[in-house]
Amino acid sequence: MMDTATPMPALAPADDAFADRLRGLIDPRGLRPADARYLEEPRGTWVGVGYWVAAPANVGEVAAVLSAAHEAGVGVVPYGGGTGLVGGQTQPEGAPPLILSLERMTAIRSLDPVENVAVVEAGVILEDLHRAAEAQNRLFPLTLASKGSARIGGLLGTNAGGVNVLRYGNARDLVLGLEAVLPDGRIWNGLTRLRKDNTGYDLRNLLVGSEGTLGVITAAALKLSPIPAGQGVALAVVPNPRAALDLLSLTRDRVGEAVSSFELIAGEGLRFLEEKLPQIRRPFAEAPEWMVLIDLGLPAGLDPEAALAGILEEAFEKELVSDALMAQSLAQATEFWEVREQIPEANRLIGSVSSHDISLPLSNLPGFIDRAGAILRDMGPFRINCFGHLGDGNLHYNVFPPKGGDLQEWRAHTKAVKRTVHDLVHEMEGSVSAEHGIGRLKVEDLERYGDPVKLEVMRALKQMFDPKGIMNPGTMLRR
Amino acid sequence: MMDTATPMPALAPADDAFADRLRGLIDPRGLRPADARYLEEPRGTWVGVGYWVAAPANVGEVAAVLSAAHEAGVGVVPYGGGTGLVGGQTQPEGAPPLILSLERMTAIRSLDPVENVAVVEAGVILEDLHRAAEAQNRLFPLTLASKGSARIGGLLGTNAGGVNVLRYGNARDLVLGLEAVLPDGRIWNGLTRLRKDNTGYDLRNLLVGSEGTLGVITAAALKLSPIPAGQGVALAVVPNPRAALDLLSLTRDRVGEAVSSFELIAGEGLRFLEEKLPQIRRPFAEAPEWMVLIDLGLPAGLDPEAALAGILEEAFEKELVSDALMAQSLAQATEFWEVREQIPEANRLIGSVSSHDISLPLSNLPGFIDRAGAILRDMGPFRINCFGHLGDGNLHYNVFPPKGGDLQEWRAHTKAVKRTVHDLVHEMEGSVSAEHGIGRLKVEDLERYGDPVKLEVMRALKQMFDPKGIMNPGTMLRR
Repeated sequence: MMDTATPMPALAPADDAFADRLRGLIDPRGLRPADARYLEEPRGTWVGVGYWVAAPANVGEVAAVLSAAHEAGVGVVPYGGGTGLVGGQTQPEGAPPLILSLERMTAIRSLDPVENVAVVEAGVILEDLHRAAEAQNRLFPLTLASKGSARIGGLLGTNAGGVNVLRYGNARDLVLGLEAVLPDGRIWNGLTRLRKDNTGYDLRNLLVGSEGTLGVITAAALKLSPIPAGQGVALAVVPNPRAALDLLSLTRDRVGEAVSSFELIAGEGLRFLEEKLPQIRRPFAEAPEWMVLIDLGLPAGLDPEAALAGILEEAFEKELVSDALMAQSLAQATEFWEVREQIPEANRLIGSVSSHDISLPLSNLPGFIDRAGAILRDMGPFRINCFGHLGDGNLHYNVFPPKGGDLQEWRAHTKAVKRTVHDLVHEMEGSVSAEHGIGRLKVEDLERYGDPVKLEVMRALKQMFDPKGIMNPGTMLRR
Repeated sequence: MMDTATPMPALAPADDAFADRLRGLIDPRGLRPADARYLEEPRGTWVGVGYWVAAPANVGEVAAVLSAAHEAGVGVVPYGGGTGLVGGQTQPEGAPPLILSLERMTAIRSLDPVENVAVVEAGVILEDLHRAAEAQNRLFPLTLASKGSARIGGLLGTNAGGVNVLRYGNARDLVLGLEAVLPDGRIWNGLTRLRKDNTGYDLRNLLVGSEGTLGVITAAALKLSPIPAGQGVALAVVPNPRAALDLLSLTRDRVGEAVSSFELIAGEGLRFLEEKLPQIRRPFAEAPEWMVLIDLGLPAGLDPEAALAGILEEAFEKELVSDALMAQSLAQATEFWEVREQIPEANRLIGSVSSHDISLPLSNLPGFIDRAGAILRDMGPFRINCFGHLGDGNLHYNVFPPKGGDLQEWRAHTKAVKRTVHDLVHEMEGSVSAEHGIGRLKVEDLERYGDPVKLEVMRALKQMFDPKGIMNPGTMLRR
């Protein structure tokens, strides 16, 4: 296998002449100049190039566009909600690509509460699917901060995570079937609604998480869940991350899979909130060094308050928890969540030297926090805000200048800090991209830390699916 | 992509000369003549060819064996517990392959109850992993009839299902990371214990379910779960499969994900038990036409009996259930399960005209049972025993001669019956292999019913991973 040395041919621009070719192939309302919103990305690291956006109305039009791009050797950047955090939705240089937006494919084709399945097109906005499911007394559990603009195609293409992964899994765990178009325009109809289907290789999971580099997902059959009968939310002050993990174990021993979220919050994050977003209500008078947010979704017959009280009482006795608050109302639960959810915004306002979306085996996590902190303290007086999805071993480990420090000056350390953090993550058997993906930001990291055989296989797969290298050029793998 | 017309080169036999080459590469105790047990399969449809079994002691030896086989163009049949039901563990004709047994790689490398992860070698027997997890108060939820001999490598290679899929997913849903050897002997070290890891294409799911045709899984990091605090088991008589589905919905509305199993049992199955295994205790004096077995695993604080009683009471009122028994003890729960678990043995003793491992979208399932029954009744006085994992939409739909009919004579109808059932499954958006896989038995079915683009991609993947076609030749894809 794997004659991977074949260089990919140069790409042609998606220029006016190419747009003219598309005019005969798709509804002309789906063809428009690429305005700024398609070329920007949330962190402002890259600005994309591109003259034209194609927004096909159906899978046949997607196939026609890809077929034309394949024939002409034109690059294609698949575009969902544009909310990705690693630059996979932009191509900042080279021949301007065609931006292929799924925004006009927004049908929820079916939503069956007995099957617990929704069949949706790739352009459906996550929050719209949440609402449609709720209207049928069902839950589509994938949720994250960008739910108001992120689209299903992008969420699947990047295997999105979020706050409910602990209970319901990543995006890939919610997919039963896919419809997708391959780079040469062939349509794969794999839109099965089956829970079990052992008929051949798993193409579904190959496309999920491939970040638009192997094809374009156009529709998906997704798993829905029952809505838990009762919710219980608490904030608990813990002495350290090790105790937080023990509290997670204790909670799971008591309520099993009913732990929907288990989020770690550092004192630094609370101080950032006080500094930049003082309107966010402080849960505790004095900011604790570590706390966790516990969100339980319980079946009928279990009282969430009683369950939480029982868990916290045992945790107090075992000295895993020193203080705790249980939400007494939905409003208070929302307030607790607000603390967690506004931390990224406070981080943005402070401005980081380097941000890291990392994961570790759960049992290595407390050791990592200790060791990384010690190493960085030796490098300088950085502030570290380490928070995130503890139950998944996924930390957002972000490093900031000292209070009053000049951000631009401290950014001279960005490269060294990132390398230090990522090297330690790798040494401790973790991942340098837990949920955000590789995009453009982490291509070098993948080359540095990825298993060499896996990288060879990835390049061979890319060559096989997309020999002209038109799909999302430069994302995931160097061209 | 996809110059799939390249014919694969002829294979060389794994003869004594090849065995001599292996002697220098692996511990000689791992090399032995292929006795009958490696050449038989449970249904007796095929008898394999093969002179030699290699049983490597570690991943390095597996790599050495595959590298030698790749170089020599010798076929390799990966061998786990030999319990597969579609012949994927045997090669009945052609140049005798090397049988590569994982039986000496039986280490449970680690089992961490805080991480909820076990790292195990491919030769570990499922039941041994069950016991090791239980000793740490954890559950490895994959379970099926052959648990006493099936090995982890084979269970993952075939993406095994079983009775707990409804709650915990298929084998693939339980895998965090893999170690595997590719057909040319390269070792992929992807043995991560991470819950989230978005660093590149998902090779893990490509190998899981590939039935040994793309490489050999040598170890896996597997998810464990908390053991539910309380179990409740009931048998409920339902008027028809539609009511059974409504009962499933009702049960999930009440207890959420706590439904571990939801199995359909047909009256025909009970009559087969009476005829062939009269020692199995009848739960109801008169065999009902349809019943379901419900198994709940509940968190602490919920009384299983009370939960089941509440569900059944509401089901009585709604006329979904006409009679029910709740297990009053663990012994009685085991007795109820015994009814379900002995049905395949009763089937075997009766002897089927044709057996089908099918799945359907849940909402098409009652319609399928009606339509298939009507069509088959027109074909002849067959007895139909239709049972299985209703919650997953997975039926074992088996067709038998009329009482007193001569099996050999009625087997003249096997082909027509199979075609009829599978055509209807396909028409109703189902799968002709829900959990058993393709193996040798369903190669033609895959060609007939598989999406043509998927088949093209599968052939290209096979060509890319295994250009000499040495891996499990003739399984999944025609050589």
